[in-house]
Amino acid sequence: MPGSAFGAIFRFSTWGESHGACVGAVVEGCPAGLALTEADIKRDLDRRKPGTDKFSTGRAEADVPEILSGVYEGLTTGAPISVIVKNSGARAADYDGLKNVFRPGHADYGAQMKYGLRDHRGGGRFSGRETVSRVVAGAIAKKFLRELNVSVRAYTIEINGVRINKDNLDMAEADKNPLRMPDGQAFEKASAALNETLSRGDSAGGVVECVISNLPPGTGEPVFDKLDAELAKAVFSVGGVKGVEFGAGFAAARMAGSAHNDAFFKDENGNISKLTNNAGGVTGGMSDGADIIFRAAFKPVPSIKLPQRTVFTDGAETEIKIGGRHDAVIVPRAAVVVECMAAAVIADMILRGLPSKMENIRKVFSC
Amino acid sequence: MPGSAFGAIFRFSTWGESHGACVGAVVEGCPAGLALTEADIKRDLDRRKPGTDKFSTGRAEADVPEILSGVYEGLTTGAPISVIVKNSGARAADYDGLKNVFRPGHADYGAQMKYGLRDHRGGGRFSGRETVSRVVAGAIAKKFLRELNVSVRAYTIEINGVRINKDNLDMAEADKNPLRMPDGQAFEKASAALNETLSRGDSAGGVVECVISNLPPGTGEPVFDKLDAELAKAVFSVGGVKGVEFGAGFAAARMAGSAHNDAFFKDENGNISKLTNNAGGVTGGMSDGADIIFRAAFKPVPSIKLPQRTVFTDGAETEIKIGGRHDAVIVPRAAVVVECMAAAVIADMILRGLPSKMENIRKVFSC
Amino acid sequence: MPGSAFGAIFRFSTWGESHGACVGAVVEGCPAGLALTEADIKRDLDRRKPGTDKFSTGRAEADVPEILSGVYEGLTTGAPISVIVKNSGARAADYDGLKNVFRPGHADYGAQMKYGLRDHRGGGRFSGRETVSRVVAGAIAKKFLRELNVSVRAYTIEINGVRINKDNLDMAEADKNPLRMPDGQAFEKASAALNETLSRGDSAGGVVECVISNLPPGTGEPVFDKLDAELAKAVFSVGGVKGVEFGAGFAAARMAGSAHNDAFFKDENGNISKLTNNAGGVTGGMSDGADIIFRAAFKPVPSIKLPQRTVFTDGAETEIKIGGRHDAVIVPRAAVVVECMAAAVIADMILRGLPSKMENIRKVFSC
Amino acid sequence: MPGSAFGAIFRFSTWGESHGACVGAVVEGCPAGLALTEADIKRDLDRRKPGTDKFSTGRAEADVPEILSGVYEGLTTGAPISVIVKNSGARAADYDGLKNVFRPGHADYGAQMKYGLRDHRGGGRFSGRETVSRVVAGAIAKKFLRELNVSVRAYTIEINGVRINKDNLDMAEADKNPLRMPDGQAFEKASAALNETLSRGDSAGGVVECVISNLPPGTGEPVFDKLDAELAKAVFSVGGVKGVEFGAGFAAARMAGSAHNDAFFKDENGNISKLTNNAGGVTGGMSDGADIIFRAAFKPVPSIKLPQRTVFTDGAETEIKIGGRHDAVIVPRAAVVVECMAAAVIADMILRGLPSKMENIRKVFSC
Repeated sequence: MPGSAFGAIFRFSTWGESHGACVGAVVEGCPAGLALTEADIKRDLDRRKPGTDKFSTGRAEADVPEILSGVYEGLTTGAPISVIVKNSGARAADYDGLKNVFRPGHADYGAQMKYGLRDHRGGGRFSGRETVSRVVAGAIAKKFLRELNVSVRAYTIEINGVRINKDNLDMAEADKNPLRMPDGQAFEKASAALNETLSRGDSAGGVVECVISNLPPGTGEPVFDKLDAELAKAVFSVGGVKGVEFGAGFAAARMAGSAHNDAFFKDENGNISKLTNNAGGVTGGMSDGADIIFRAAFKPVPSIKLPQRTVFTDGAETEIKIGGRHDAVIVPRAAVVVECMAAAVIADMILRGLPSKMENIRKVFSC
Repeated sequence: MPGSAFGAIFRFSTWGESHGACVGAVVEGCPAGLALTEADIKRDLDRRKPGTDKFSTGRAEADVPEILSGVYEGLTTGAPISVIVKNSGARAADYDGLKNVFRPGHADYGAQMKYGLRDHRGGGRFSGRETVSRVVAGAIAKKFLRELNVSVRAYTIEINGVRINKDNLDMAEADKNPLRMPDGQAFEKASAALNETLSRGDSAGGVVECVISNLPPGTGEPVFDKLDAELAKAVFSVGGVKGVEFGAGFAAARMAGSAHNDAFFKDENGNISKLTNNAGGVTGGMSDGADIIFRAAFKPVPSIKLPQRTVFTDGAETEIKIGGRHDAVIVPRAAVVVECMAAAVIADMILRGLPSKMENIRKVFSC
Repeated sequence: MPGSAFGAIFRFSTWGESHGACVGAVVEGCPAGLALTEADIKRDLDRRKPGTDKFSTGRAEADVPEILSGVYEGLTTGAPISVIVKNSGARAADYDGLKNVFRPGHADYGAQMKYGLRDHRGGGRFSGRETVSRVVAGAIAKKFLRELNVSVRAYTIEINGVRINKDNLDMAEADKNPLRMPDGQAFEKASAALNETLSRGDSAGGVVECVISNLPPGTGEPVFDKLDAELAKAVFSVGGVKGVEFGAGFAAARMAGSAHNDAFFKDENGNISKLTNNAGGVTGGMSDGADIIFRAAFKPVPSIKLPQRTVFTDGAETEIKIGGRHDAVIVPRAAVVVECMAAAVIADMILRGLPSKMENIRKVFSC
Repeated sequence: MPGSAFGAIFRFSTWGESHGACVGAVVEGCPAGLALTEADIKRDLDRRKPGTDKFSTGRAEADVPEILSGVYEGLTTGAPISVIVKNSGARAADYDGLKNVFRPGHADYGAQMKYGLRDHRGGGRFSGRETVSRVVAGAIAKKFLRELNVSVRAYTIEINGVRINKDNLDMAEADKNPLRMPDGQAFEKASAALNETLSRGDSAGGVVECVISNLPPGTGEPVFDKLDAELAKAVFSVGGVKGVEFGAGFAAARMAGSAHNDAFFKDENGNISKLTNNAGGVTGGMSDGADIIFRAAFKPVPSIKLPQRTVFTDGAETEIKIGGRHDAVIVPRAAVVVECMAAAVIADMILRGLPSKMENIRKVFSC
């Protein structure tokens, strides 16, 4: 099986290269009768766009989504939703010097070995441009989740070694600053650090956090397609991710069971709730009623202006400096991609859970 | 789609509950003509067994695999390989008191919400006993990988807060001590710490590391079924995992691009190689020729003797202490499960990569 | 992807060979909370058994199903349901002479080319014995369908050239005679014809018809996984099927549009109904409210006592007569297999249809 | 799982409606390194186009394919191949009167029940226009198959009750006449019959035959994904198909085993071959070295000018006559679609067969 489709029921496939005419996504399995417009998609594409600040690539793209199928009179019809987004800012000539060389930290070498050839222009299929298609699918998933009152939100918690202070947490702030950090002070510090990194011709990484709220408990498909397993796969499929953790995450490995276990209690509304959320909302591979919380570590952007040792396609050694237009850090833009991938997973897992018990089936068929 | 099957081509499904008559796996897609015996499987089942030490559950199981199909005269036939392993040490009565209560840190609550009912005996389907089936499948995958000279190896690098010292690394040691730690001194310290934890009626977690060697470069299916994404899903599907990272992992988020990028060079044999391996052997979602290295953080065992606040199925509050037979730490046994899941992923991804280029197809059909 | 699993949501995989210790099925995706016992499965296994008449194989099998997982206190739990059925009547020595020869009309040659080796005993994986596993899965599907008031029924309409007269149709009769023909007179004639065929050392084929009633309209997944397409695949996957047709079938090719189209009308209950059913209940790949009706043509049993020209594995020519225990006709037993495969498809397609519209999702989540 | 994708490895999904801006296909899993141009696709799109004769719809479409991704410098890259084809001849106003009525023989009623709403214009997603996407995918599959020297060819053998005479078979003739009949005399008779049908305001059906040559023996994935099962599913997924049969087909049900079995012999080149081909090239679900031969019965076109009894969406009775532009018979155009679907299946099954034996894997990895 090829690897350009994601999901089982809410399933989308993406296509397109950095320097092709356009990129696109085909979303299958979105239930009929959902209100959907191009504006619903444009909103998240705009959030993914490079900032106008100096930390982002200078490549400018209008990123206007065109819905070509699957929507009629403002409602989804149950047919595949095909969306294309034109590439307008491609500048293939920038890559002429990279045709026969393997850039360190990029997919070049693996792709050459796997396929025997590659479209080197801007990374071709392996470019971050591909994530436009993910945002398209995720935006549709978010529209669906809104109907069920489920929210998905991702933001930056660390960049270039500067971490937010959870005491300062201000989610509105995340939408205001170009680093998508929900802490104004951390944003200032991270900006300064990034400036310094950039001035050296280098690049930085960081950490994204994602919170999913109001997910029905029991979502997830044990034993292999657990909720955390599916989310982890989705997030690791985003370029540059080197680690994913839920709740207490790696720190959980050092906790005692008595400290890590989240005790249940009966809350003021008489509902079963948890006193703590070390699990990050997933226990036994299913949602446990608390917020789903996970973090993804992004490596520094591999395209740097500093000289690097590498080899040509034929194995001969050389040195390169990567010119062209590149982000100094992709974390703020990647946060939107993580959010969209998470939304797609959640939409899919909710739909996959429908046949889990006879009770649900009886509700649908009134039998 | 239900969630009890894993893989696309080398695909296996598992079945069975902690207190049923047996557990089993059906492995499909193993190429015909592979030599396979029950001993090949028994070896890894024995490695997964609880130790005779006090850190492991007292439940004793013979864990004898029976191959019921798919092998004829010592060779796989291309038909599904069905393997069952009898449960002999089940003691359902131990769980009578847990029928109507949700144990903190366990799947109980989610399962009840998802399915509307549950087999509470020993966790039923959600028991660690299910991993026997994973080891069966992984052992078969390992036999296949050996033919391609690919090796997969997992071991403990941290338990109860005690981490190995990589300077002392001795892989032979990992097979000798019950904590599967490749560092004799760390093993001693971890044992002492675990003793202390156990004496308090508490439990511990830890970290497993896995190394895959000699994998052909270009293995992995971008853009969604990347090698690291598939491995992460596989590992997160193992109970208790709260974090997964590759190569430099979370630390990569704090590195500069110039420090993180792995430079290519031409090695003494004239092959393209990497100077460092911060990527952990996966770049752009495909193997890059270096060893694949990842780590998985395991939470502490949720079953503890200490009192815990929780609720009954009907929401009424209560307090429980978990009796019965439980591991104080599952990390050493989980390492074998991680190794087996990784082997299954690698076998699958190698087979999935066969049609990636016309050159491969021409080799098979001599055209 | 290997080919031993069927279905997307109600998904089962089968394993086992004619002369192995047992055969089995693992059924995933059956909703939790369905009452299920071994007797539910035994009933259909008994219907599939060879008769005690001379038209059936002399191989006697108890065919006792054992449910090894997925059911707790009489209800399905949502976990995979593993069922095994022991082989007791295998007599491998009967096949010693067939090890190196390709039987005409059997899978021998293709299997040898595909896998490079084969388990020749009784056809190994390609034996009709494999259909025991399909009946197991189908019996579970039928139990599920009964909850929704959907029925599936298959029977013989033609054997050895003798076709039933629809004017004599008597469904009770189909359960009484060993040829499963719902027409006593046709049964008598077919028996006589079969006797004559058998006395010549030859074999016969026939036609099975299947009717599915009370299926909700709109079941089926256009554009590729249409209801008729999925049923056709399921039925063609049964050994010996050479043709499948729905409703008017091949005759439709000679009808005028005005004669073939099924007109809609408002029936006495105010429901939309069809005046005729040339479509066989499927229009545009979805159920149209009428009974689903299809027919499957079975070729004559390939194992015959008459001499046949063929070749050895090495290509040298030879002549064989097939001894051993074989059915003279498999149509009556195949009818049960067709019925079970159809039930599995219908269960799966009903579950696949759950997320087709927002209205269904709102019913489940009360939103 | 939604139903708009087909295949496991060579996998394509289609999107688009009759009266949307365009239709398209995304083809994944085509091996890298295959030469591919838009002309390769255009050729089959032109064959699918309505003729200029009076038997075909008056809707004129340029049907120019645009490859948007997956091809670089004339070779496939292994990335998804996205192809769009603009709709230029849509005339939605023709359908204004059909918004609230269910046309007999069409998908209207089922779609309304399934999705709760529908795009009624030209049948929306259920229009024959969707088959443009299938032809795109099939043309790419055919290009791949040509590299392996495998050919796929479909043609009309019966229309409006007039069947070709196999003694007159002339495949070159099939490309010359608008009914795609490989028999000039039959074409003349069928044209006359069609003229008469058309003059009555009625429509006709017919039968397509397809032959696949030079397929390696052993292609197909028992036990469920048999070669004939997959082909049958593919062909039944084409609108209007009511029956599919292989080789002797339904006639096999009346043959004796001794007459139906295809004897093996050693041919003049020393190869194993078959004396007859009653099996239609598939035995035990795998290709047996002979040509694959199957036939598909198409019902008459449901859109007719004669008055038909039917109901409105609300159930009230009415009568309709279908105006607009429609084919009097779709069989000649459907033959191209059947050919393309068959090619897609064959490409997929060949790729699925790669990992069937260790020998193949050793060839690829030289181990």
